[in-house]
Amino acid sequence: MWPVRKILVIGIGAGNPDHLTVQAVKALQTVDVFFVLDKGTVKQELVDLRASILEAHVTRPYRWLEGRDPERDRTATDYVQAVDDWRRARADVCLELLSSLGADEVGAFLVWGDPSLYDSTLAILDDLLGRGESFEVEVIPGVTSVAALTAGHKVSLNQVGKPVQITTGRRLAAGWPSDVDDVAVMLDASYSFEGVDPDTWIYWGAYLGMPDEILISGRVGDVASQIRAARDEARARKGWIMDTYLLRRT
Amino acid sequence: MWPVRKILVIGIGAGNPDHLTVQAVKALQTVDVFFVLDKGTVKQELVDLRASILEAHVTRPYRWLEGRDPERDRTATDYVQAVDDWRRARADVCLELLSSLGADEVGAFLVWGDPSLYDSTLAILDDLLGRGESFEVEVIPGVTSVAALTAGHKVSLNQVGKPVQITTGRRLAAGWPSDVDDVAVMLDASYSFEGVDPDTWIYWGAYLGMPDEILISGRVGDVASQIRAARDEARARKGWIMDTYLLRRT
Repeated sequence: MWPVRKILVIGIGAGNPDHLTVQAVKALQTVDVFFVLDKGTVKQELVDLRASILEAHVTRPYRWLEGRDPERDRTATDYVQAVDDWRRARADVCLELLSSLGADEVGAFLVWGDPSLYDSTLAILDDLLGRGESFEVEVIPGVTSVAALTAGHKVSLNQVGKPVQITTGRRLAAGWPSDVDDVAVMLDASYSFEGVDPDTWIYWGAYLGMPDEILISGRVGDVASQIRAARDEARARKGWIMDTYLLRRT
Repeated sequence: MWPVRKILVIGIGAGNPDHLTVQAVKALQTVDVFFVLDKGTVKQELVDLRASILEAHVTRPYRWLEGRDPERDRTATDYVQAVDDWRRARADVCLELLSSLGADEVGAFLVWGDPSLYDSTLAILDDLLGRGESFEVEVIPGVTSVAALTAGHKVSLNQVGKPVQITTGRRLAAGWPSDVDDVAVMLDASYSFEGVDPDTWIYWGAYLGMPDEILISGRVGDVASQIRAARDEARARKGWIMDTYLLRRT
């Protein structure tokens, strides 16, 4: 039997280093090589945060391999196709990174939040397995930004016995989804909340769990402009933003 | 200024003690009184598991206060009303538990998964605040059973750029929700997955993250009876079951 290369996909939480689970801390300690895909325009603060997580929890020696994250075509009209193309290009970069992993070594990708929610790492690894690459995958679940958001606001994600939808800003801009009164929105760079019924309640948060955390809640009609201003100001000041929100109709 | 009583609502993950976050471990160390609401028919294994989590992480002395969880009327036709009545009865019990908390002490509720998802603790505390009780609430987010499910199956919760709905077995039984191809289902004691299109893909899991974890996936038409049999067998053997699943149309 061939020795098996192992790839860990580790959810590291929404930004607070203490969001790391005990399982993630233990897993970090087994890793030989950390793989990192960073954009050309690196958000240095996030890079530093990730580095400080490793510093706090990993005592054994490890290698740190960075690949240049290919740019996504954000002007494309076909969103799914554009994301697919981008994933394929990322998979090519990952394949090169993985080639440096020894036959019985453990590699790892660190993923903000939980690896299951709007993250492409698992799809990339599937793609590589489909190309005939051989490795074993293990996923370590993490605290999602949605859980960090509701914790910050001290609210439930769902109303009693009711469903909740998790969606993107792009989808929300196309209209309120059917059959739900509670909608958590991720990846919204376009202030899509401004288009919903002003009587909807919004729980918005940025830099969740971090020292810079910003929380704003209220009737959309009352707080939408306040959220836009806070978001613009924070993004200009820090150079980047991670935010998410929950919309609730009662 | 009066000293403020503090209530922590701590997500402890889906069942694997290692799902605890570093933040939760630190929070546990500050607690004077743990509040527990258990049903008459206690699931001893879950009680033991919770106790072992405290044993592993709490070194300072604490008090452990148990209240008898009132029964919910599961025959009621009005589900929301029945849950509301039950929450009020639980709030009464909690009020009694809280009366033992000293003026500057810290109390805590431990919640499986994350406190935001289909858990009533936050609603109960809101109810008590509405009755004029005075305390400060802090929520510590946790790993949801949905994240543990997708980690076990090594799959994404959402398809690229698409929404996902989290709902209950009761809701799913009333029909597939509009506008989504991916549905995570919790609290399903009635095998509602048997009613969906047999070509739907199902990722089912029970006792997620625990040594007894069971994972079954496949076309609903192919694996539904296998899941029912595994669920019935495990529940009969252990006396309880916690399970959840993701349905995917591609």
